[in-house]
Amino acid sequence: MTDAGRQAAVPPGRQPGEGKPGRPRSAPKRHNGLSTREEILQAASRLFGEQGYAKTTTRQIADTVGIKQSTLYYHFADKRALLVSLLSSTVTPALACARWLGERDLDPVVRLCALVSFDLDTLLRDRHNLHVVYHLPELETDDFTPTRAAQTVLRDTYRDFSRAALASLHPPREAAELAEDMDLVFALVEASVSQRQWGGEENRFRYATSALRGSLRLLGVARADIPDVITRAEQALADYRAEVGDPPLRSGHDAG
Amino acid sequence: MTDAGRQAAVPPGRQPGEGKPGRPRSAPKRHNGLSTREEILQAASRLFGEQGYAKTTTRQIADTVGIKQSTLYYHFADKRALLVSLLSSTVTPALACARWLGERDLDPVVRLCALVSFDLDTLLRDRHNLHVVYHLPELETDDFTPTRAAQTVLRDTYRDFSRAALASLHPPREAAELAEDMDLVFALVEASVSQRQWGGEENRFRYATSALRGSLRLLGVARADIPDVITRAEQALADYRAEVGDPPLRSGHDAG
Repeated sequence: MTDAGRQAAVPPGRQPGEGKPGRPRSAPKRHNGLSTREEILQAASRLFGEQGYAKTTTRQIADTVGIKQSTLYYHFADKRALLVSLLSSTVTPALACARWLGERDLDPVVRLCALVSFDLDTLLRDRHNLHVVYHLPELETDDFTPTRAAQTVLRDTYRDFSRAALASLHPPREAAELAEDMDLVFALVEASVSQRQWGGEENRFRYATSALRGSLRLLGVARADIPDVITRAEQALADYRAEVGDPPLRSGHDAG
Repeated sequence: MTDAGRQAAVPPGRQPGEGKPGRPRSAPKRHNGLSTREEILQAASRLFGEQGYAKTTTRQIADTVGIKQSTLYYHFADKRALLVSLLSSTVTPALACARWLGERDLDPVVRLCALVSFDLDTLLRDRHNLHVVYHLPELETDDFTPTRAAQTVLRDTYRDFSRAALASLHPPREAAELAEDMDLVFALVEASVSQRQWGGEENRFRYATSALRGSLRLLGVARADIPDVITRAEQALADYRAEVGDPPLRSGHDAG
């Protein structure tokens, strides 16, 4: 579960200003290839990590990006909204993918494998040093309790998918016994957040591949069947990504 | 590995003043049952987490504990020594246990299982909110590179123990394939650090039990053999703890 510890998220609200002429644009490319919105999130994440959440002001964040405070407020209501948005950036996509997978007629083992693979990709794509942001002490205060809700939903989805997968693989008593340990699948995925500390993209990708196989091994999938399950899961995800227009990470698009 | 992400440690130096009459004592019990040294570590951990490492001064830490700064300096050379000590508090005991286990004539699977069990106990025993301290941005600076060394040694020890266990369980080609994923065992153990966020000691203990079984399942230990391996590992650990005078966590001694 998450040493990794995504402390979750609330569903994101409407993205202000997107596609509206005459307003500050949220998507224009700047010299570093990031939108203003992304630059704000990047700066906020860095400052929260370096000096804490309480000590960081929206003025500092705006100054770091080189924009007016009014531009920052155009994109985010307040400092709290910035933190919530950082946290939701990993959980919301996984929840949407899980919903889509849940509506498809998929083998339960393939369905769980697809969720694990998608979630790992989302976490690897992280450009915001979330392994620091996730551990801000403020997240343990009541003020951020609602941001836990989405992560709890995601964890519960892992449990549901795992139970269905176990039921398709094992007799009932064995499936029930194995189900006791199924939070480990979530833990392996979340643990990928901290892979950054071991240095290098290569290590993170290697970990993700291991975690995918490891998840299937924890379920009790026979070793010989693992490659086929992964292939079918990636096929399902290709369909999903094509539908929502989300590029796969491992093509290298967004890995920086 | 380690989402969990202990960022490691250097071996602890001599503990100043222990058992020396006429000097500040490091072990006397205070009203809260902690030694002065433990109280300093506790306060440092909290302040590092709340306001960052850079902003925290040794004067603040001393004031929080209610001691003179000279008393703090009696126990710790400087602020950096405090952080290093916090980090080493989880890695050093596991390394010592691994060394002991490596010198005993144990089944390689039992040996790895004992290391996992001991390490999980050490992490559960954590009273210092290390899941926050481990993620201080300062740890990524060169100044703390040496503190990574001990954690790398521990990760390598997990790899060595895992390879020996795999070789005892599988034919060579299968063992080599499974060895690619053996950092997952370390990841599962480290992920226990973040269990705290899911609330309650009970959940953390449940996770530790799952992680122990999960580690054996990742190795490919047959389900029916898992209880026996765990029993034998706990027997070995009982011998070790009796020898070094370290109480088992699960007796409830230190779980607060």
